[in-house]
Amino acid sequence: MSISKNTIKYIRSLQLKKFRQKYNNFVLEGDKIAREILQQDKLRVAAIYALTRWIEANPSSLPRFPDRIHTITAEELQKISSLSTPNQVLIVAEQAQHDLDLNLLQDHLTLYLDGIQDPGNMGTILRIADWFGLPYVFCSEHCVDVFSPKVVQASMGALLRVDAIEMSLENLHQKLPTLPIMGAVLDGSNVFQTKLPAKGILVIGNESQGIAATTDTLLTHRIAIPAAQQGGAESLNAAVATGILVAVLKNRI
Amino acid sequence: MSISKNTIKYIRSLQLKKFRQKYNNFVLEGDKIAREILQQDKLRVAAIYALTRWIEANPSSLPRFPDRIHTITAEELQKISSLSTPNQVLIVAEQAQHDLDLNLLQDHLTLYLDGIQDPGNMGTILRIADWFGLPYVFCSEHCVDVFSPKVVQASMGALLRVDAIEMSLENLHQKLPTLPIMGAVLDGSNVFQTKLPAKGILVIGNESQGIAATTDTLLTHRIAIPAAQQGGAESLNAAVATGILVAVLKNRI
Repeated sequence: MSISKNTIKYIRSLQLKKFRQKYNNFVLEGDKIAREILQQDKLRVAAIYALTRWIEANPSSLPRFPDRIHTITAEELQKISSLSTPNQVLIVAEQAQHDLDLNLLQDHLTLYLDGIQDPGNMGTILRIADWFGLPYVFCSEHCVDVFSPKVVQASMGALLRVDAIEMSLENLHQKLPTLPIMGAVLDGSNVFQTKLPAKGILVIGNESQGIAATTDTLLTHRIAIPAAQQGGAESLNAAVATGILVAVLKNRI
Repeated sequence: MSISKNTIKYIRSLQLKKFRQKYNNFVLEGDKIAREILQQDKLRVAAIYALTRWIEANPSSLPRFPDRIHTITAEELQKISSLSTPNQVLIVAEQAQHDLDLNLLQDHLTLYLDGIQDPGNMGTILRIADWFGLPYVFCSEHCVDVFSPKVVQASMGALLRVDAIEMSLENLHQKLPTLPIMGAVLDGSNVFQTKLPAKGILVIGNESQGIAATTDTLLTHRIAIPAAQQGGAESLNAAVATGILVAVLKNRI
């Protein structure tokens, strides 16, 4: 079986946000994530394009999708893939529609990303949220799209468990005005020595600009990771800072 | 003034480890790191290649190197740069020769990287060491070269303050047999709930393989970052895990 030129064109169009939004679909690639996505119900699978050997190696997960499996050749996979070295299988899935659960929001630590633009950082932050069990990652409109191929690749399946929602902090604040909003800023109080809420929103700023001035006015707590006096680095990588702050907030005694 | 074909060939050769080792030189690029390197004495500057406008904008730092400044055109810079968008200036510097100070080693937390291969992770880890004031980052022979262009770029100047040394853990252990060697492993004890030394070596494993079996036998403490029960991520990014562990070990009360 082969795929049509229109299908190739359609799948390739999903590399652009414009078309991902138009069709509400996105692409996941690779053996591992494919096996994961076929065993969950959070994201709806629209189509599976796989090499014969992958289909033969994964017989158990496929009967659920008899009408959505397309056997393709390595050459065809190369045509639809965004990877320089495609890995056996490509899946088109629907972007999940999220209803924000205010109780869940109130009872957990969550993240608000105020303009994370590097796809690697975004994917790594989604993995952090996944690891520490944060239900939501909110993204300002200035963030890289979480459904872009590079973010999906770097997030290593986190999107199957973490809800990433584009929403302004103001909007969130209006929904739950009492929710603590902690922000990572260079001149904040030492996170290791400050009494802080274990639940609420942690705001992470843009890689080079930090937190926007309009965002800063909404912060209830301004926190920082202490640098060594003899250290010379101007900043930590945004994903590393996120990991440290989330780990500490989730594990305070 | 223009640069010769041989110079272009020489600088481009430094993109490869073989030639960096042969000549003991490496390349740093960009306005910010150039201004930093011209104001320090740790790394010896061999040559500065810069656009006229950069030289005019940075008059104060240049008199120290009158014989090593080469004005070049944007076209020439493009030829010697490893960046797709070169940024005004490129510097050739000597790889620093490090004498390991055993007292310094004994009195600090340091890192041993057991096969970090992603240049972005390596650069980010060097920034972490810089931020938290770790004097040394030791690298196994399976690590990406810290003087490769991508690592230098991602480390954002950390190499000007942190000593990165290629050395086996066995060798380190022989030099200081009583030094604690903590390793990040998935089944280790919760770093937030375990009494741990504040000084010693923290071992971080390879991105997908973790810590090698031969390295594991040298560990005196096996530690881990606790995942949420409901979390689904199999692991954290290696640089994020490094950041969390270093932050916690340096800031325990």
